[in-house]
Amino acid sequence: MEHDQIIQLNPVIHAPVRLAVLSVLMTVEEAGFKYLKKVTQTTDGNLSTHLSKLETGGFIKIIKQFKAKKPQTTCSITDKGRKAFIQYIEQMEQIIEKQKKNL
Amino acid sequence: MEHDQIIQLNPVIHAPVRLAVLSVLMTVEEAGFKYLKKVTQTTDGNLSTHLSKLETGGFIKIIKQFKAKKPQTTCSITDKGRKAFIQYIEQMEQIIEKQKKNL
Repeated sequence: MEHDQIIQLNPVIHAPVRLAVLSVLMTVEEAGFKYLKKVTQTTDGNLSTHLSKLETGGFIKIIKQFKAKKPQTTCSITDKGRKAFIQYIEQMEQIIEKQKKNL
Repeated sequence: MEHDQIIQLNPVIHAPVRLAVLSVLMTVEEAGFKYLKKVTQTTDGNLSTHLSKLETGGFIKIIKQFKAKKPQTTCSITDKGRKAFIQYIEQMEQIIEKQKKNL
């Protein structure tokens, strides 16, 4: 049923900031915190919270290291994250197709 | 930019329960609270909160009346809600198309 599909969308992926982060990480080996902040147009604190949720879900890896004595945070997508993102896009595509028939 | 589109998705419509409610109301003249609760698989309190957000945004009308001495809540979509829903579906369709190219 089409409404079931909407309700069952993965809530960890569905939030726009997290969806944008994953969409970036699908196309690059890794992305830095500053770049992700620019893309998501959010604050440090808000982005950190969203990244933690993605990490807790096993969808991304967060690497914290020092480069030229400055702390640097980079993120990369995991295999689980990649699969979940693809599944989300496929589910959303089906939802959109059904909705368009009702417009 | 494709990530801008994700971040700019209408947050009132994007939440799955509210998306499911609007998707129902796009196809019927009005829907009762009980039916919407069944569709969204949520609690009375949670559904009420989501319906209030849609009403505050001007996307739906909530009508409370008595039928056979029992209180009855029914909802219908407004013109603004219809336009916003269609815009959301079109935006999401564009997002999905772009994401699919990266899969």
